[in-house]
Order: sequence, then C-alpha cells, then structure tokens
Amino acid sequence: MVFTESTTQSKAPGRRVAIVGGGLVGILAALYFAKRDWNVELFELRKGTRNQASFSQKSINLALSTRGLSALANTGLNLDEIVLNFVIPMKGRMIHLDKGELRSQPYGIFGECIYSVERKALLELLLNTTKKFTNIKIYFQHRMKTCNFDLGLLEFENVAEEIKVRYTADLIIGADGAYSSVRSQLMRVVNMDYHQEYITHAYCELTIPPIIDDKGDLKFAMDPNHLHIWPRHTFMMIALPNLDKSFTCTLFMPNENFDAIKTESELINFFELYFPDTIPLIGEQRLKEYFRNPRGSLISIKSKPYHYRNRAVIIGDAAHCMVPFYGQGMNCGFQDVEILDSIFERFNVTAFRNDDSLDLDLALKEYTKFRHEDAMAICDLAMYNYIEMRSSVVNPWYLIRRKIEGWLHWLFPTIIIPLYTMVSFSTVRYSDAVRRWKWQSLLLNVIGLIIGVVIALLLIFLYKFLCRYI
Amino acid sequence: MVFTESTTQSKAPGRRVAIVGGGLVGILAALYFAKRDWNVELFELRKGTRNQASFSQKSINLALSTRGLSALANTGLNLDEIVLNFVIPMKGRMIHLDKGELRSQPYGIFGECIYSVERKALLELLLNTTKKFTNIKIYFQHRMKTCNFDLGLLEFENVAEEIKVRYTADLIIGADGAYSSVRSQLMRVVNMDYHQEYITHAYCELTIPPIIDDKGDLKFAMDPNHLHIWPRHTFMMIALPNLDKSFTCTLFMPNENFDAIKTESELINFFELYFPDTIPLIGEQRLKEYFRNPRGSLISIKSKPYHYRNRAVIIGDAAHCMVPFYGQGMNCGFQDVEILDSIFERFNVTAFRNDDSLDLDLALKEYTKFRHEDAMAICDLAMYNYIEMRSSVVNPWYLIRRKIEGWLHWLFPTIIIPLYTMVSFSTVRYSDAVRRWKWQSLLLNVIGLIIGVVIALLLIFLYKFLCRYI
Repeated sequence: MVFTESTTQSKAPGRRVAIVGGGLVGILAALYFAKRDWNVELFELRKGTRNQASFSQKSINLALSTRGLSALANTGLNLDEIVLNFVIPMKGRMIHLDKGELRSQPYGIFGECIYSVERKALLELLLNTTKKFTNIKIYFQHRMKTCNFDLGLLEFENVAEEIKVRYTADLIIGADGAYSSVRSQLMRVVNMDYHQEYITHAYCELTIPPIIDDKGDLKFAMDPNHLHIWPRHTFMMIALPNLDKSFTCTLFMPNENFDAIKTESELINFFELYFPDTIPLIGEQRLKEYFRNPRGSLISIKSKPYHYRNRAVIIGDAAHCMVPFYGQGMNCGFQDVEILDSIFERFNVTAFRNDDSLDLDLALKEYTKFRHEDAMAICDLAMYNYIEMRSSVVNPWYLIRRKIEGWLHWLFPTIIIPLYTMVSFSTVRYSDAVRRWKWQSLLLNVIGLIIGVVIALLLIFLYKFLCRYI
Repeated sequence: MVFTESTTQSKAPGRRVAIVGGGLVGILAALYFAKRDWNVELFELRKGTRNQASFSQKSINLALSTRGLSALANTGLNLDEIVLNFVIPMKGRMIHLDKGELRSQPYGIFGECIYSVERKALLELLLNTTKKFTNIKIYFQHRMKTCNFDLGLLEFENVAEEIKVRYTADLIIGADGAYSSVRSQLMRVVNMDYHQEYITHAYCELTIPPIIDDKGDLKFAMDPNHLHIWPRHTFMMIALPNLDKSFTCTLFMPNENFDAIKTESELINFFELYFPDTIPLIGEQRLKEYFRNPRGSLISIKSKPYHYRNRAVIIGDAAHCMVPFYGQGMNCGFQDVEILDSIFERFNVTAFRNDDSLDLDLALKEYTKFRHEDAMAICDLAMYNYIEMRSSVVNPWYLIRRKIEGWLHWLFPTIIIPLYTMVSFSTVRYSDAVRRWKWQSLLLNVIGLIIGVVIALLLIFLYKFLCRYI
C-alpha cells in the first residue's frame, strides 16, 4: 500500500492536532482546539451530515443535559443558547403502566429539564460553527488505516478518491467511537487495561408519527414534554419527542425475547400484551418496522490509560462507552472535551510551544488520572439505571424514597441532592456524585430507621395508654 | 496489497483446518487434528525452533504438571513418556527466608511432582512429532494479515519471500497467543466480552550458572528438585532448574521498584538487602543482566465466546491469558486441545463430513460453554497465587492450615484435597476445584472453630478443677 504525503496540510506555525472521528465529540474538540489557536485537522469516514445512512446504527435523538450544555457554553460561541432553539424540553418521566394509566414523575423538584435533541441537527450546528475558524480543516471520507504516535504520523485511505494519504500532527486525538482505531493503536504502545462487555439485551427503534388535528395541523400523539417509559421489569420501551412532532420509540429487551418474535401476529400479540396503548399510536403497518430496523447491541467499554506521552489521547466513546440508560453518553463525551481544555489551561499548554517540552506530557497524564475515575463511575451508573428505568420506577418503596428525598432536597437543597439531579443537572464529578449518593443513602436509611423506631414506640405507648384508660 | 492463491495447499479430500500460531498449544492442536485425519496447515511467524531471539519475551522454562501430561498422553504418541526424559522434577517449594535459611514445602503429601521443562526442548519434541503425519503442513515466517471466517479465507504475508498468500480452510484455529490476531478478527463478527488487565508488577529474568565441583564436573548451585522462592511480601524471586544445571531466576516486582533501581550499586544494595544468598550464586558480573534483559509485563485476559459458528475457535493464551503464578498457562492450553478433541468425539465431528452440517457448530458452541467457566477460574486462581507465593508461604497461620489440610488429605484422600493438588495433580475441572476448595475451606473453618471451642471448654474445666482441688 503506497501512501503519499498530504499536499493540503496546513504549514501554518504552531502545534497541529489531528482529530480522528468527526462525530459530536470530535467536532466539539475541534472547536475547543481551534479557539486555543492550534491547527486542527479533523478526519471523518462519513460523506458529510447529509448522508443519513451512516447513522443507521446510532440512535436518532439524544438527551442533552447540564454537562453537555456547559461544554457547549464554554466554547464561548453561544452554542448552548443556539441549541435550545431546536430541542424539546422533557421535565420528567411519563410512566405508562400495564393497563395504560399514566404517571408523571418530574426529574427535579425545581422544574429542571433534560432536552431531546436530534443527533443530526446538533451535528450540523457544530459543523457549521467550524466554518468560523480558518484553522480547522475537515477531511470527509477518510478512513484511518494506521498511526505512529512517536512520529506523529497518520495514514488514511481517502475512500472518495481511492488514494492513500499521510498526515502529520503533534497531537493525535481519538474521538472515533466505541470501535476506535486510535484506541487499537494505543493498545500497541501502552499497557492498556481494557474491558468490553455486551449486555444480553438489545434494542430496536420504532416511530410514533404525528397526528393531524381537526384543523389539519400536525400534533404530538402524546405529551411531548416527557420521556415516556413503558417499564415491564425485564424489558422496557421508551419514547423521545422529535421536532417534527413524531416520537422515536426504543424497545430494549433480552435477545431471546427478540428472537422469540418471528411473525407479524406474534409481534401484534406481544404489543397487545405489553404496550397496548402504543399500537394505535404507532399503527399496525408501521409496527412492522420491527422486522426491518436493525437490532442494535449494547456495549459497555472501560479503558485506561487514555493517553500516550505527549502524543495521543482518546475521548468520548473511544475511551469509555456506556449503555444508554442514563442519557449521559454524549454529555460525558462533551465534558471530556471541556475538562481536557481546562487541564490544558491549568498546565499552560499553548499552541505555540512546539518543542518537546513537558507541558503536554503532564497535561495528558493528568487527564487520564482525573477523568478515568469519573468515566468508570458513569459507566456503572448507566448500567444500574437500566434496572431503575425498567423496574424500580413502579416499585412503591422506590417511589416513597424518591418522594422523601425530594422533600429533603427542597428543605436542604445543598445537603441532600438526589443522584439524578447530581448527574443530569450539575457538573459535579461523576465519582463525587456516586460518593455523595452512597453517603446520602446511608443517612436516609438511618433517618428511616429512627423514624420507624419512633413510630413503633409511639404506637406501643398509644396501645398501653388505650389499654389502661379505656 | 495483492494476494495470490496458495499453490502449495493440499487438495486432499476431507476437512481442512488452519491453525494460526505454532507455539506449544498450536502444534499440539495440529497433532490432535492430524490424528483425526483432518488436513492440517499450521502458520507461524518464527523462522523455526532454532531462532532463539523469537522467544525473547517468553520465559525460558515452564512448569509441566498433570493436565499437560494428560494432554500429551492422549495424543497416543507416547509424548508424556518421552517428555519425562528431559524434565527436572520439582517435589516442592524451597522457601529462602530473609536470613538465608531454607524451608522445604512439599507440593503433595504423596510425593507428587511438577516438572521444570525448557520451552525450546518441548517445542522441538512437538515439532519433530509432526513429521510423523503427512497431513500436517507447517508454514514458517507467515504473518496473518486478515481472515474471513464465513469464507474460510486467510491472508498471510510470507515474510521470507515478501509475498502475500491466500489460503482456505473449513475451520480456523487461533492459537496465536495473548496478542492474537484471530481473536481480533473474531471480535469483528461476534459480540465478544473481553477483559484485559495489566498487573502493576513486572518481571525480569536472571541466571544462576552451574558450579564446578572438585572433580571438574558441573553441578547445580542449589537443590534442583525444588522450585525456589524468595518471598518478600510485596515482591518475590523464583528459580527453576534447567537441564544444563543452571537455574533461571525470575524477579517479580512492582514497576516502581524496578524503576527505583537505576545504578549497579543500587542493584547490589537491593540484592544484599533482600536476596543476599543469591549474589554469590548469580555473581556480581552476571547480576548486571538485570539492566540488559527485557522487563516483561504481566497481562491477564478473559474473553467469551471462543468460537464463531462452525468456522473458528481460539485456544490457549489467545482465549485466556493468565499471570504465571500457578504454573498453569501451558497446562491449561494443552488441556484446551484435549477437551476440544473430546467434544469433537462426543459430537461425532469427523474429518470427512464436509457439508454444512451442524456437528461442528454444536461442538464449538459446547466448547465455549464448557471451557469458559474453567478458564475464568484458573485466571483468577493464578492471580490469587501470586499473594500465596510472595507472602502466605511464610505466614504461620497459612502453614498450620496447610499442615492440617495435608493430614486430613492423608486420612481422607478423596474427601479433603488441597487446592494445589486439585489444580496441579489432577485433571478435575478448574471450576470444580474452586467450588470444592470453597466448600472445604468452610468445613475446615467449622472444624477449627469446634476444636477451638472444645479446647477452651477443656481449659475452663481444668482451671475450675485445679482451683477446687489444689
């Protein structure tokens, strides 16, 4: 395979960063580095955003929350405000019980919202924003073949022109997702602890189209300001609203349950049994997409370290990939970029010190050290939240506890903070959120125990009193 | 990259198996498949056994025990008897205490031995044995580039002739070690759970040469019939005897301890402090090999599944890689081959049913199902045994417990069996050994508790008796 040197590569002074992967996290990283005056080159296999097919294995809409918004805000480009123009706020979960009854469970007692946003729209916003920077160059249809970190050399196949091209960079960033090639290369040069696990559940996407009202206008078929959940203990379906007034439903279920549904009548029976209220909304005809749409698998990935010397670092799904049940995958990836940037600030990594100085070494080392603990925490929480979503949300004890926690949070907003609030509505470190959650759970259990004992004593006292005087 | 079809590939009728990796496990697999009349092609990157350098990252000698011998015996080629001609039996551990004192701890109470064998000698025996089979063809200096399991297609680089060659096979076996390329390919077609972890300790090999006695003959510098251990709690050194009357020492230690030794005087000081008895044996000059010899890292790998349809299976280190502290890596890999063969027997997988029948599908599925649990168990035990070797072996409680367990084993040889005996001197499933060990530990603890209570009662009774009558 013969590679030719790139002729298009910028010869501007200052450090050069090559970002492999032009997904959401990769493009956000490009913006942050461009703001720091690095020469940014971003490589992506897709043709561009217009190419829908390339997202076929990815979910259509995402839940954007505080961490993601914070990282968008810190670009200094008003992205957090712009994005709010095309999101749909979801103020809570809407639980669809077995018999079709609805229960709204707000996410926060102060009216906090997460936001349903379409992947494609967000990607376009970020891509369009890159045009403001002359120091960002994007190469589409580039497939990375290999890279040499020590030499800062990357070899790509330009699949459009069917040629092989070689680029150089001072720093290589792997933002190339769960099946990251940069990570694979990293594993050759560092002793990487690596864990990947497929859960035994898979998912399939379906659509609830808009309905047409009396005036002929399109309307949402259900309340758009909720994340809808059909919790069925061992499996569940969820639905998020889209701007075109449709909902994207995702059915999460053990593989064997998927395998068991082979015919259209089995499918209808299954939906009649478990999700009867959705059949008129989806429509029997559209329900058959179940057989056409791909069945996605769910992988969880942990790795360490994330970096190699002053040469390379992996971020987003390339470094840590979580199951989607906390809605934090993108938010965590965005926060990776923000944190990497803040560490660059702290270690005084500038675009114009191109000698082999230690600043970048130390910054990347610190990034692994700081971020690994948090990524592990959110990967575990995401796994845990599947049980919460598909089962706990209809458990009376869970509901009582949640209520009490909510009251206490209202009374002592800085002392007792529900886990969901810390994860979704703050930027506190994930690992700190988990530590605090454990501490609060202990406290709540002790308080519960004390209240229980007091009530028991009062009842005994009352009984004795009644026996004596009545 | 242009690949040409192989012109040397056998056109004989019957199924063809391609074994990638000509290490110990790969060659043993070749023998087993050849015996079953398959057309066997084995591909190996080394030049041949003579090429010492290619083993530079592998330990020089290995501990062969019952599982390995059983797999050699079941080839029906007398390999278990032949190998015993060039091994050195080790009947126990020889503990070198801090002050140079020696303590022998036999491995089994019935005089059971494990055997020190040189990797190169065993490899040569296996390689020479392949010559008895006209249906085994070995290709050296072949580096696998890629393979397509569904098509049964393998692409190699013949590094000697600098050409790319393509082979086909009905079944592809990955016996290509911890950094297996076949496993990497497998991860593309199956949802593989995969875990790799580097422990924070590394190793370095040193040599104790033979000594020359009064008559001018070469002699071992220490008792050759023991595995020598210098347990130092957080680190340790071990030594295994070689046929040339030398010992190969391996120093296992946290990376930071290795890093801390930078100069020759620091090295001497370190050895004077922790391994003073070895300095005259190794010799100050030869001790400096510490700085020249590579520092090996220690990786533990678990994966699942091991197979893909009826097309591919990984065995040995490619499937499960353990730290070396139980001396079971090779033994487990050999047992993989024996078990795969027994499952082929059970599922009636023969060399001459080349249609797409289900026999091979079912057999490979059963292999993953049966073997995964055992491989997980021995990977965990190997990790655990590092603590036993470097620390427990000098703990008085451990020694008392071991003695009691030994007596009970002698009294009830089929009821109480020490863990080490089950792992090293039997072919019982590793997972069964662990289950039994846990059950026995519970029993021993209960017995210990009862004995303790009885002794306490007796002492109280004695005290009362003495108080009353004296």
